[in-house]
Amino acid sequence: MKWLSLFLLAFLPSLAVAQEDPLPSWNEGPAKQSIIDFVTKVTTEGSEDFVPQYDRIAVFDNDGTLWCEAPVPLQVNYVLSELKRRAPNEPELANNEMVQAALNGDFAKLLAGKHHDGLMEILALTHSGMTTDEYDQNVRNWIKTFKDKRFGYNLPGMTYQPMQELLKYLRANGFQTFIVSGGGADFMRVFSHRVYGIPPNQVVGSNALTKFEMVNGKPTLTKTMDQVFVDDKTGKPVGIWQFIGRKPIACFGNSDGDQAMLEYTTIGNKYPSFGLLVHHTDSEREYAYDKKPPSSGTLITALEAAPKYGWTVVSMKDDWKTVFVGDK
Amino acid sequence: MKWLSLFLLAFLPSLAVAQEDPLPSWNEGPAKQSIIDFVTKVTTEGSEDFVPQYDRIAVFDNDGTLWCEAPVPLQVNYVLSELKRRAPNEPELANNEMVQAALNGDFAKLLAGKHHDGLMEILALTHSGMTTDEYDQNVRNWIKTFKDKRFGYNLPGMTYQPMQELLKYLRANGFQTFIVSGGGADFMRVFSHRVYGIPPNQVVGSNALTKFEMVNGKPTLTKTMDQVFVDDKTGKPVGIWQFIGRKPIACFGNSDGDQAMLEYTTIGNKYPSFGLLVHHTDSEREYAYDKKPPSSGTLITALEAAPKYGWTVVSMKDDWKTVFVGDK
Repeated sequence: MKWLSLFLLAFLPSLAVAQEDPLPSWNEGPAKQSIIDFVTKVTTEGSEDFVPQYDRIAVFDNDGTLWCEAPVPLQVNYVLSELKRRAPNEPELANNEMVQAALNGDFAKLLAGKHHDGLMEILALTHSGMTTDEYDQNVRNWIKTFKDKRFGYNLPGMTYQPMQELLKYLRANGFQTFIVSGGGADFMRVFSHRVYGIPPNQVVGSNALTKFEMVNGKPTLTKTMDQVFVDDKTGKPVGIWQFIGRKPIACFGNSDGDQAMLEYTTIGNKYPSFGLLVHHTDSEREYAYDKKPPSSGTLITALEAAPKYGWTVVSMKDDWKTVFVGDK
Repeated sequence: MKWLSLFLLAFLPSLAVAQEDPLPSWNEGPAKQSIIDFVTKVTTEGSEDFVPQYDRIAVFDNDGTLWCEAPVPLQVNYVLSELKRRAPNEPELANNEMVQAALNGDFAKLLAGKHHDGLMEILALTHSGMTTDEYDQNVRNWIKTFKDKRFGYNLPGMTYQPMQELLKYLRANGFQTFIVSGGGADFMRVFSHRVYGIPPNQVVGSNALTKFEMVNGKPTLTKTMDQVFVDDKTGKPVGIWQFIGRKPIACFGNSDGDQAMLEYTTIGNKYPSFGLLVHHTDSEREYAYDKKPPSSGTLITALEAAPKYGWTVVSMKDDWKTVFVGDK
C-alpha cells in the first residue's frame, strides 16, 4: 500500500498537468491553436519537425508584447519619476532645457530631430553617471511606488496574463525564453526574474558600457554612455547574435521594431519556426492602435507582412480572455 | 520485488555519485580542498554560507585557464591558418604588409605600437567582412584540421582535463558556468558547447557588432568591426555586467587579464566567494611561465595579489595528475 501511494504520488501530477489547459487566458481559436500546434510538433520525438531542446530558443519583445507600452513605455515613466525626484536637489539638472521639457510634458520637444536628441539627453541623465548598484536601487525604489494612472495596477500587474502563461508553457516544453527589447537591459534586469521568470543573462536590451574602477578598495562599475547600442529594429537580430549567439525558433513581438527579428527567426531557419504579433485591438481593456507610437502617423507595417511570412496575429480583444495580470 | 527494484534504481545512482571523487585529475592538497570546501559550504542548505542556486554564477577565463595558450593563443593559430588559406586567391590580402608579416612569423611587427595595430589589422581581416554563417563554417573547417605542433592533440585535446572536471563538478552542484575571455566570442561559441558544455549565450568574449540586411530575400548578419569591445583586464567585469548582469561568486583565471574580474568577484560580495589562478609551472607536461605573454618582461602581478585576497593558486605541476584531455 505504501509503495502504491508512492507510485501514484510520482505519476499523478504529470497526468494532471497533461490534461490542464496550459493557456487558460487564451480564447480558443486559430491564434491559440497555432501556438499549441507549433510547440507540439517541435517537441514530438521522432517527428520530422522535432527540435532538440538545446535549440529551442524563444525571443520576446517587452514593450507592447509582454507588458503595456501605452500611453508611454513604462521606462519613460521611470525617467520622469527620477527627474522629478532629483531636480529639487540638483540645480544643474533642474536648469537643463530638456529636463524642463520632460517635467512639463513637452514630448514634442524631446522627440524633435532625427536622433531624438532631447529624449537621448534625459535618458543619459537618468541611466549613466551612477554605479550599477545605485541604478539598481533607484529602479527598485521606483517599482515600489509605481501605479498605472488608468488601471491602478503595480508593475507586475501591467504585464499581460496570456503572455505570462505562454512564457511558462514554452519553458515547460524545454524552451529557453529570452527578452529582446528596445528597453534598457539594466532597467529590465532589475525585475525580469521576479516578474517574468527570466534571469538577467537572458535579457537583451539597449545598453552601453560600464567603467570598472577600484573606489576606496571596492570594485565599482559606473554606468556610462560609451558604445550605446539601441536594441530595436535591425538592432534586434544584431543583439540576438551578440548575446544569444544562435538563431531562435520562435519570436514574439508587436510592432515594426520587431519585424527584423521576426524575419531573422522565420526566414531560412533550418528548423520549423514560429512568429507572432500582438495586435492592440482592445480600447476598453487595454488600448487600440495600428500606429506606433500611437500618436504618430506611422502604420505598423509588420502587421501587413504577417500573412506573407505566416506569422500569427493575435487580436487582444478577441484572443485574450484576460488582459492584465492585475485583472485577475 | 518489482517495486523494490524500482526503488533501488531510483536511489542507487545518487549514492554512487556521492562517493565518487568529482575531481579525479586533481592531486589531494590545499588547492583541490579549497574548491571542495567552497562548493560544499555554498550548497549546504541551512548553513549561513548557503547561496541560492539562482545566484551560483561561476566565470572562467579560457586561454591559459581552460585550454593551452602557449606558445600563442589558439585563436592566433586560426588567424594564420585563414590568411594562408585565403592569400593565394585574394591578391589584395596577400599584398597587405601586416598579412605578410603574419605569414613570415614577424610577431614583433604585429605587436608594435600601443594598440598593436598590426595584430588588430589581421584580426579584422579574418573576423569581419563575412556573414556569421561563413565565419562559423571557417572556424569549423579549421577545427577539423587543427593539430598542436608539440603535443599532436586536436582542439578538445588541448583543453585541461582537471578544469573540464571542475566545470562538470560546479554544474552538478547547481552552478551556471560562463566563459569570460579575451578571445573572440564568435570564435569560442562555435565549439563552446561541444567542448566545454557551455552554450553560446554563456560565452562572454571580445566582440563587435554585426550588420543585419536582407540579401536576396534572406536575413543576413555580416560581421563588422563596429563597436569593438575587448573583453580583457578591466573589460572583464564590464563584460560580465553587460552579458551576465550579476556578480559571480566564483572566478577562475591565470593572468593579469583576469585580475579585475577576480577582484570584482571576491571583494565586497554579499555571498561567500571564490577566486582561483592557474599557475603554469609544468614545463614538461605543458609550459612554465610567470610572464605574460611568456616572451614579455611583464610579471603576472595577479599571482602576487593572490594571498592578499585569498585566491587559490593552482600549481599545474603539483596539483594536476593529468594536464590535457588529450593525455588521457
